Amino acid sequence: MPPLRVMPNRNKKSRAVILLSGGLDSSTTLFIARSRGYICRSLILDYGQRHTREISSAVSVARRAGSAYNIIKIAFPWNGSPLIGKAGKLPEGRTVGKIKKGGIPSTYVPARNTVMLSYALAAAESIGASAIFIGANALDYSGYPDCRPDYIDKFNELARLGTRAGREARPIRIYAPLIDLTKSRIIKKGLKLGVPYELTWSCYKGAARPCGMCDSCILREKGFEEAGAADPLLERAKR
Amino acid sequence: MPPLRVMPNRNKKSRAVILLSGGLDSSTTLFIARSRGYICRSLILDYGQRHTREISSAVSVARRAGSAYNIIKIAFPWNGSPLIGKAGKLPEGRTVGKIKKGGIPSTYVPARNTVMLSYALAAAESIGASAIFIGANALDYSGYPDCRPDYIDKFNELARLGTRAGREARPIRIYAPLIDLTKSRIIKKGLKLGVPYELTWSCYKGAARPCGMCDSCILREKGFEEAGAADPLLERAKR
Repeated sequence: MPPLRVMPNRNKKSRAVILLSGGLDSSTTLFIARSRGYICRSLILDYGQRHTREISSAVSVARRAGSAYNIIKIAFPWNGSPLIGKAGKLPEGRTVGKIKKGGIPSTYVPARNTVMLSYALAAAESIGASAIFIGANALDYSGYPDCRPDYIDKFNELARLGTRAGREARPIRIYAPLIDLTKSRIIKKGLKLGVPYELTWSCYKGAARPCGMCDSCILREKGFEEAGAADPLLERAKR
Repeated sequence: MPPLRVMPNRNKKSRAVILLSGGLDSSTTLFIARSRGYICRSLILDYGQRHTREISSAVSVARRAGSAYNIIKIAFPWNGSPLIGKAGKLPEGRTVGKIKKGGIPSTYVPARNTVMLSYALAAAESIGASAIFIGANALDYSGYPDCRPDYIDKFNELARLGTRAGREARPIRIYAPLIDLTKSRIIKKGLKLGVPYELTWSCYKGAARPCGMCDSCILREKGFEEAGAADPLLERAKR
């Protein structure tokens, strides 16, 4: 059973924990979970991102979705990625496409999704949720080891073995509904579900407007272009 | 390859991350890692334990072992176990033996080892460590789903898929060298390695002396008895 496909949510009162960063992908994921009838609780993990813009975007999106949320500060001295802290220099321009096949981008953060999914698993079991949603995507960030289907599969197996829910009742399922979608398909899906993309934030930098230069900005722009839609965040910034 | 057996550490400059709680098992595990020639870094996770006695014990043990250490505060609203916070009532007397075979004790904390191992994995990859040590034990706490060999196996598979180290270089290995040992065998091993058991703390309560009534005290007492040794912590308390 592939982890990517969201199983029917027969019990309309099922709870789900959503890992919400405030970006385009995780915001769309929240709205997908909501559309399946889950009672959603968003986990907003503050792990020392370069700017707080992401956190406030996540809060705005959770509110718009009518999702309860928790902001959890992870005081962890992560090294090894320029996405964390102010020390490293961010890569400018498109680097994703320049990496050799199977290579890992310099923006990789050690075991990030493992830590985030672990928190989600603990939270899910604590509140009796039956599902976890993560906006991992294997196409745009094919280099990240913890954004691939085999990794999500493996975490599902771990969740079954490592919890009371998994051993004694029903395992908590991890869903990554965007994992094999292109950015433009994600955006099309999100627009249908009413995702407020003007509230989301993708840029690696925390300025007033998106820089338009980093990987994330470039992927987002291309996504909206291919989806044949205007990015409401840029529309708003123009005004 | 069973995760319990520690592989030869051929490169004597290999680093290891040790999950150190300050209890008997994790302290013994630190000294086992040290005896294999690893350069040890202890991770002391403060996840809202009932008392700070555990933290200070862990620091004392790390210092005695000559291990670098980090104390990391995890501000996470865990519910569902009386071991966390002050709200729940601790079970008195031996409950472990009273639980039906395969049952999970009330002291279970949702996904605790998954969260702790995730931090250890992130730390290990950040500092270039090749191994993680955890004092999980499947005999005394057979009820805990995340203290069993199949769980540790699964986390090893996850560590391989979820990190740059695992995909591009050599996977970080998780070792649980105590997983199939009785408490008395753990103590015998530890005494040979010079573990300062007078610095360790096992009691679920944080009083000046161990309560002698909780599961953890009873298991510890029985362990020393069967090992034919006096518990130096109790010896010291008598004075």
